[in-house]
Amino acid sequence: VILVVSLNPALDVTHHVDGVDWAGVNRPGQVRAAPGGKGLNVARTLHARGAEVMLVGLAGGIAGAAIRSGLRASGVAARLTEIEACTRRTFAVVDTRRGEVAMFNEPGPEVTSGEYSRFLAAYKEALTACTTVVLSGSLPGGLASDTYAGLIRIAASGGVPAILDTSGDALRRGRGGQPARVQPNHAARAQAVGRDGAWSSPPDRSAVLGHAAELRNRGALAVVVSMAADGLLAVTADGTWHAAAPPVDGNPTGAGDAVVAALAQGLTGGWSWPERLREAAALGSATAAAPGAGEFLDEDLARARVGVQVTDLEHALCPSFR
Amino acid sequence: VILVVSLNPALDVTHHVDGVDWAGVNRPGQVRAAPGGKGLNVARTLHARGAEVMLVGLAGGIAGAAIRSGLRASGVAARLTEIEACTRRTFAVVDTRRGEVAMFNEPGPEVTSGEYSRFLAAYKEALTACTTVVLSGSLPGGLASDTYAGLIRIAASGGVPAILDTSGDALRRGRGGQPARVQPNHAARAQAVGRDGAWSSPPDRSAVLGHAAELRNRGALAVVVSMAADGLLAVTADGTWHAAAPPVDGNPTGAGDAVVAALAQGLTGGWSWPERLREAAALGSATAAAPGAGEFLDEDLARARVGVQVTDLEHALCPSFR
Repeated sequence: VILVVSLNPALDVTHHVDGVDWAGVNRPGQVRAAPGGKGLNVARTLHARGAEVMLVGLAGGIAGAAIRSGLRASGVAARLTEIEACTRRTFAVVDTRRGEVAMFNEPGPEVTSGEYSRFLAAYKEALTACTTVVLSGSLPGGLASDTYAGLIRIAASGGVPAILDTSGDALRRGRGGQPARVQPNHAARAQAVGRDGAWSSPPDRSAVLGHAAELRNRGALAVVVSMAADGLLAVTADGTWHAAAPPVDGNPTGAGDAVVAALAQGLTGGWSWPERLREAAALGSATAAAPGAGEFLDEDLARARVGVQVTDLEHALCPSFR
Repeated sequence: VILVVSLNPALDVTHHVDGVDWAGVNRPGQVRAAPGGKGLNVARTLHARGAEVMLVGLAGGIAGAAIRSGLRASGVAARLTEIEACTRRTFAVVDTRRGEVAMFNEPGPEVTSGEYSRFLAAYKEALTACTTVVLSGSLPGGLASDTYAGLIRIAASGGVPAILDTSGDALRRGRGGQPARVQPNHAARAQAVGRDGAWSSPPDRSAVLGHAAELRNRGALAVVVSMAADGLLAVTADGTWHAAAPPVDGNPTGAGDAVVAALAQGLTGGWSWPERLREAAALGSATAAAPGAGEFLDEDLARARVGVQVTDLEHALCPSFR
């Protein structure tokens, strides 16, 4: 069983409106609402792929109730610790006429120490049945920035390797716990090493490699950097690889979480790094190709698997990758 | 116990943003989310006033789960029949810098005949313990426009009087059931008699009286027309009255539902029409005076009670009211 930790889930609501009246009444033609946040996306992708998955985390208030209900409907096993404060929502208004998207991101809840203690008990109990733990997304208010480090330490003491996908302080401090894998996403990576967060486009791969090495020096056993359409870069004890799928048009939302899901399956299954990266890049690409956030079609995945190029950068012929 | 029927509740979410970026990411400074729809407002107001209330209706999907959770937290006794389709949400984005409000109203769910049958069983069971029934708000998809007429007939056969507060076809056809009271709101009233829905401002009271009489001819025992700041007009078998509170600044959302709540208490308690109208106008005014939708302060209510003018239009000295 893969254990997914989501401490700050969200209820994601999207309205499609053909020409928004920003000072009047709108009747959205299309409405989507689903439990979201990076951890929930990872758990749902794993569940859709037939992997055994258990979700733990924090949820409260009426948005928390909505998330619990949505998870029940999707069949993802979840044990969310109840909190007093209300779980956050995100609200996206897609103006299909103007081609604009307005996002409204509510602040996350404040978590009390008593609530976090109850979560910790549930986390420890769930860990006993799990082979891998994935820690995804931001931290809600009230939790220390080294929270992930503590959770990774607890997992490690039980022999369970961890994949961390977060950003900012939560990533910087999260690595103190000697995680088995750090999986910073595109925008997060530069923050984690305390440098200017802006990427050149396409990113400078030698700079990425340097930063990934720095993350490893700070305690990560392996670093996988997701560079959106420019693929994945993995710096590990076994070697350094680049994996990229052919470019696709679609909706990149959730593609990074699909990458994490595939990496978790590869870690659980004992796949080699090139195998993990091929599947992760393919699943990320198939997810980006589907119109719905976090969805993918089996045919897109099959096509992407064939198209992925995995390059061993330590033995590459192309010097630009060195 | 006052039974409140809400067949098409909503989850109402409001974001306050200081200067909205309609093509970017916004972080609302203030977020409100609560179960809404007219019936839920009535039930909550009755509960806040210490009246015994039971809510029945339909709710489904993740918004339905959020509504159930919010009702539990508010302490309102509710028995909502589960439906497959998702209960609607409303999203209000208040731009505090520009003074504009954008509303996003999701379409209501489609209700199946099996689901409505299950609701009917719950309704009939709840009726046995109730003295008054309030039917509030719009009908969701899949229900016939004479749905309220049927529910009013069932209540009448058990000796339970009904107050109906709805609009459009649901009101026009709802009256076929010989309701004890029809309480069309301001905008709804003119629609109900098949005329142009637009009010002159201030409304022409003799025209309102004529329309109310027409509604009574079609089966309503009494008609109370809520004219916002212009007060209430009641046409009943006992007489015709006008009641108005002094004007207030605030948030008129939910004031009409507060009027209905007070009328239901008056009907249950056997108050005279002037007593009912005084309390209804006062509670509506106190609700309009409070900043939060559907909230009121006891001190505002006490002040409004003193300020309400109730005029007997059949014996009025002022001929303009005749």
